[in-house]
Amino acid sequence: MLRIVAADSGAAELDSNFSVKSIIATAAVYLGFPYKRPIDYICLTKPFDPDSSEYVVRELELAGQLAKKHKPDQIHIDISLGGIRLEDLNREFLEHAKISNRGKQQLLGVLDKIREVGMRIKKETGSDILFIGKESWAVRIAELTTAACAVKYGVEKALQGEPVIIGLPRRCSITITRDYVIARSLFYDETDIVGYIRYSVPNDVIISEFPNPLAMGFRAIKIQRM
Amino acid sequence: MLRIVAADSGAAELDSNFSVKSIIATAAVYLGFPYKRPIDYICLTKPFDPDSSEYVVRELELAGQLAKKHKPDQIHIDISLGGIRLEDLNREFLEHAKISNRGKQQLLGVLDKIREVGMRIKKETGSDILFIGKESWAVRIAELTTAACAVKYGVEKALQGEPVIIGLPRRCSITITRDYVIARSLFYDETDIVGYIRYSVPNDVIISEFPNPLAMGFRAIKIQRM
Amino acid sequence: MLRIVAADSGAAELDSNFSVKSIIATAAVYLGFPYKRPIDYICLTKPFDPDSSEYVVRELELAGQLAKKHKPDQIHIDISLGGIRLEDLNREFLEHAKISNRGKQQLLGVLDKIREVGMRIKKETGSDILFIGKESWAVRIAELTTAACAVKYGVEKALQGEPVIIGLPRRCSITITRDYVIARSLFYDETDIVGYIRYSVPNDVIISEFPNPLAMGFRAIKIQRM
Repeated sequence: MLRIVAADSGAAELDSNFSVKSIIATAAVYLGFPYKRPIDYICLTKPFDPDSSEYVVRELELAGQLAKKHKPDQIHIDISLGGIRLEDLNREFLEHAKISNRGKQQLLGVLDKIREVGMRIKKETGSDILFIGKESWAVRIAELTTAACAVKYGVEKALQGEPVIIGLPRRCSITITRDYVIARSLFYDETDIVGYIRYSVPNDVIISEFPNPLAMGFRAIKIQRM
Repeated sequence: MLRIVAADSGAAELDSNFSVKSIIATAAVYLGFPYKRPIDYICLTKPFDPDSSEYVVRELELAGQLAKKHKPDQIHIDISLGGIRLEDLNREFLEHAKISNRGKQQLLGVLDKIREVGMRIKKETGSDILFIGKESWAVRIAELTTAACAVKYGVEKALQGEPVIIGLPRRCSITITRDYVIARSLFYDETDIVGYIRYSVPNDVIISEFPNPLAMGFRAIKIQRM
Repeated sequence: MLRIVAADSGAAELDSNFSVKSIIATAAVYLGFPYKRPIDYICLTKPFDPDSSEYVVRELELAGQLAKKHKPDQIHIDISLGGIRLEDLNREFLEHAKISNRGKQQLLGVLDKIREVGMRIKKETGSDILFIGKESWAVRIAELTTAACAVKYGVEKALQGEPVIIGLPRRCSITITRDYVIARSLFYDETDIVGYIRYSVPNDVIISEFPNPLAMGFRAIKIQRM
């Protein structure tokens, strides 16, 4: 059955009033049947401005990197355009797309770059590139994976100084095991779906999770040295 | 308290790329307090084109058939028009309704038929006929029931040849018991709600369930002979 | 971290056809880290017409009363205006807000009163007043608390005569313990979040909970004397 690489960006660094300072992570995941957890993944934790549009190209590049290794049937990029293929994504389509004006302007600004990078990836991998966003469960698993990646980033930052607060993706909860950081979904139909990274959180780090009171559906974690 | 008959169509046959080939089942259910599982049900598994509008009349006919037996207070049909009564459903109302243009054209095309069949049912049963769709928990239980019906259809088809892939209704999961196929809801506030049919799945059939990677919120099952 | 008072109105008295007769309760809650249950709360159970707009001022007054005691950083009022502050809420803002026309008219009608009461509370408490509605988890906890308050109201009314049917807030379920009425959330990412009141339900009262068949996502309880 269908083999898929999907990419998404997520997990925010928050200030003590729970305002977003930056988006921390981009993750690409490789999935096959039964589509419940990544067979392979890569993470990039380089915080970027939530208002910039650079993340789209970053997701595409990261997905391309993983796709070169696995040659999947499809690549899913987290832009909710109903699953349109790269070949059909052009200025005219975007202008008529049912997305916010701000999102539209952002995408139009990087459209040429998206097409250039996308065409190169398609040539190298033979994969169909779909802009499918939140309709894709593969993108959701990439989203969960960003949370696991962001925990590692937060732990390393907190070890150097102040506590770090991370806003997790919607309906996501973190479980720490000896060898893994696991990001579980808190949608009841996704209890068998996870993102994860292989990473051992040092023993002198405390991670506490709580609902973000200003953003229903979202949890936050506070990471601090003991 | 209120006794209700509700009808819905659902469960899709998918190809190996998870594209919808047809909608498999229509179910009508009869519910009374405490509205958690059908007291009675009927199923029709005759696949139809997802783009056709014939399903509305089919739902109405099936609901009418069950309603004749139970004389409920209300009949709920799965069209999300805010619970409007049959008597008030006319061309003018539909033209101003907040539904997609495509849905509107489809409904306008079968409106006369809906009114004709509906009026006959109302006369025979004394029940109020409401177009309430996804706001009704009774319609949701009919939707779950279509999943159970579709499993039987899929098993019988798979026994004759190739594996069958069925896309379940949103947030639905199948449990097979000795005498029943049970369709549970995967909404966390619906854990006590089920649809079911009485049917024993043969022992040489394997059913595996997995998230449909292209449709977040939806699971699929693969049915095959051992 | 942030300390918050939030207010909401909810829980409806229903007739035997599940139509709303009135909204029963307004609750204000005081929350601190980790934002999972109220540290303190107050309830007002004085049924009001669901079509009136008086509830906004009532929520503000109740929140103000609790805020005077706790001097929180923020006060959250259940109007979904994206978290706008009291100081920025004016006629022009409301006229351009993306809310229903009916909601807009209602708010415009009580805007002067909102500003007057709000300014007084801000002066007395030093708290920022935000109109944030369903995006705030604090407002959600206030919403759950209205359900617990409404149970007490319903029990006292049922003890005097006829059974009472209460429509709970969306995705909410009631648990009765010896000393508390607890309103749990039925969102799977809110299993650690509750509202509650201290109240002992008399032993000769029977409370049964069931899905409201006409309102998906909502449960109802029937309260009656033994």
